[in-house]
Amino acid sequence: MKPNVLIIGAGGVAHVVAHKCAQNNHRLGELHIASRKLEKCHRIVESVYSKGSMKMPGHFQTHSLDAMNVAATVQLIRDTKAGIVINVGSAFLNMSVMSACIETGAAYIDTAIHEDPSKVCEPPPWYANYEWKRREECDRAGITAILGCGFDPGVVNAYARLAKDDYLDEIDSLDIIDINAGKHGHYFATNFDPEINFREFTSTVWSWQNSQWQAAKMFEHKQTWDLPVVGQQATYLTGHDEIHSLSHHLGIPDIRFWMSFGEHYINVFTVLNNLGLLSEKPVVTAEGQEIIPLKVVKAVLPDPASLAPRYTGKTCIGSLLKGRKNGEEREVFIYNVCDHKQTYEEVGSQAISYTAGVPAVAAALLIADGTWNVRRMVNVEELPPQPFIALMNEIGLPTQVIDSAASGTSPVEVIDAADTLRS
Amino acid sequence: MKPNVLIIGAGGVAHVVAHKCAQNNHRLGELHIASRKLEKCHRIVESVYSKGSMKMPGHFQTHSLDAMNVAATVQLIRDTKAGIVINVGSAFLNMSVMSACIETGAAYIDTAIHEDPSKVCEPPPWYANYEWKRREECDRAGITAILGCGFDPGVVNAYARLAKDDYLDEIDSLDIIDINAGKHGHYFATNFDPEINFREFTSTVWSWQNSQWQAAKMFEHKQTWDLPVVGQQATYLTGHDEIHSLSHHLGIPDIRFWMSFGEHYINVFTVLNNLGLLSEKPVVTAEGQEIIPLKVVKAVLPDPASLAPRYTGKTCIGSLLKGRKNGEEREVFIYNVCDHKQTYEEVGSQAISYTAGVPAVAAALLIADGTWNVRRMVNVEELPPQPFIALMNEIGLPTQVIDSAASGTSPVEVIDAADTLRS
Repeated sequence: MKPNVLIIGAGGVAHVVAHKCAQNNHRLGELHIASRKLEKCHRIVESVYSKGSMKMPGHFQTHSLDAMNVAATVQLIRDTKAGIVINVGSAFLNMSVMSACIETGAAYIDTAIHEDPSKVCEPPPWYANYEWKRREECDRAGITAILGCGFDPGVVNAYARLAKDDYLDEIDSLDIIDINAGKHGHYFATNFDPEINFREFTSTVWSWQNSQWQAAKMFEHKQTWDLPVVGQQATYLTGHDEIHSLSHHLGIPDIRFWMSFGEHYINVFTVLNNLGLLSEKPVVTAEGQEIIPLKVVKAVLPDPASLAPRYTGKTCIGSLLKGRKNGEEREVFIYNVCDHKQTYEEVGSQAISYTAGVPAVAAALLIADGTWNVRRMVNVEELPPQPFIALMNEIGLPTQVIDSAASGTSPVEVIDAADTLRS
Repeated sequence: MKPNVLIIGAGGVAHVVAHKCAQNNHRLGELHIASRKLEKCHRIVESVYSKGSMKMPGHFQTHSLDAMNVAATVQLIRDTKAGIVINVGSAFLNMSVMSACIETGAAYIDTAIHEDPSKVCEPPPWYANYEWKRREECDRAGITAILGCGFDPGVVNAYARLAKDDYLDEIDSLDIIDINAGKHGHYFATNFDPEINFREFTSTVWSWQNSQWQAAKMFEHKQTWDLPVVGQQATYLTGHDEIHSLSHHLGIPDIRFWMSFGEHYINVFTVLNNLGLLSEKPVVTAEGQEIIPLKVVKAVLPDPASLAPRYTGKTCIGSLLKGRKNGEEREVFIYNVCDHKQTYEEVGSQAISYTAGVPAVAAALLIADGTWNVRRMVNVEELPPQPFIALMNEIGLPTQVIDSAASGTSPVEVIDAADTLRS
């Protein structure tokens, strides 16, 4: 029986999830999308129909929902008979949507950790702050909850697990490398909601070194890589959810997350941050109006959803693992390259939203066919990676592997290593 | 008889005006200061007493006043028996304060042109937009109205007039050079109210070339000078009120205003401006709150009045004139150098406020003793410059002159000339 899917959220990632669910509605059943802003749901469903994304005739219904309201979410899950909920709304909604899934027995999928709106950025241990406290509840209810199943976290976790299963006996280090080599043509824009985007960079950067958390400042550690397709790219050490779950589940002593930033982005970010304009704490104007500066910055920046039509270039996101197999040193880089223009032509989204949304739908399909229907709370690296990777090869995110055992050289050359983080 | 003085405004320049009036209260009589924010007036008068600025025992009274309200301002002028009003409040107040002076017969002094709060920046012809339309009213009422009597406009106008009277028969060009070589120690700050400060730079830059207005963009024309005391300084062509009155009254074919900016200032300004954060047009946040971005930028920046204690270094502001005397080529640079730390020690203000405030008080003293009590509306270059310059030598702003007829060389070397503006 097809499960029916309820998508929560109506932003850029929800747009991709809606299209991919539609392309696979013969396996997923009836589709529903719910957000506080019904108008945004309408626009997404219109786009699904106008692109001809529905694989077979079927329902795709829109709903108005405040997903902070658990009772209302429970009611909607029951009304829609949704067996799977894909939560791609704000990061503040995870706990309330999870509660509704536990109460109704629906499977739960999200793409990032829960955040508290009153904090700038959650400190580690990230999954342990909210999600993992509810493992037993999920066990008892027998619901499948797949945490962090976008690209990163998500696919990069599966890549790390694949390396452990197939390429390396012992792993010394994992470097997750996230490159957006695309151009949006604006003076400045963020690819996600600026409120979420900047929160990632305004506080302490946490990495996992020698099996311990290590603090750094944003833009303190720069490393330049020579990567497939996108070439030489400067990246900076950044904190990211999956460092926590991967360190816990795979026991790798060094895990780092590297994100690409151009000089211009860093300059604009630095100016805004130093002036206090990225603060989530209210200020009072001379006229006595109270306002959160970050919300004003968000208001003047381009809507991330508006970037897609002009976006060109590619993303390259992957996991670089170093260790040994049968006593021999070995390195493997497992990655995907995604093209902004192609994803726009296919579903009307840029590659950043596309790479985040497609894996969540792959997870839904693997729950629907039983492969990943584990009836407990898991991170992606706890699940068998092969069927996930094989399915993504089919539905738009093909995986590539460069293996030093085959090539004879390091799969990714470091052009300019971060001083204190050589490995 | 001493005239009694009413100061309108309670910002950085008003602070200096209050101290300088107090230092000369034996010639000015009773002193009054009025602002919408009474608390700010109290703080200024406290500072006057704590610095021992009162020359002789006397009154210095504070008043709460909305100077947009002409009737209230008329009433206050009558109540205080003020013979001279020094308007150093917001640039939006000029017309209403002038109306109150015309009605009561009090002399009027300001330091910058009137502005309409709904416009980003007044276009030329600046004085003709508001002030000069009221010349006949002032004539009929027989009131002395001295326009633009800060340093620039103000003292630089007197310098140009001095050059015309004493140094040159024919003048080809006037370059007004305004250098702040001081350091305030903050990541970024403006020296005046950010709302006024940025308005000067966010729209078209107007200069007077070949006896016509010429438009440019801000930071389009850079010129580096080697100046006395402050040394090599990069400046940018900027629009400024006095270009208009000086072109009208002195008939000089080329008049340009150059202001110093560091690379860091330009970078921060450019980022904020390109993002739309310097706009005076309201934006709406995702939560539906309407807000003017520039007011938020103002709220996060340091209060200009708070900069003084840490300010070090000097300003150098002057007029460079080129032409001929008795058929011989001649150049003269007439300027003042002012020290941030010294002005802070004297009156608790940095040099930018000091250089703007002292000339207005010099004008009040010259009205009080009859020298400048012309009973009509004038710009500073219409008045005899010698008594003004002599008085400022005494009260804190000494004038220096470098004359090519004496030195044999150009008084100010241009290190790097703006391409399209060589002269």
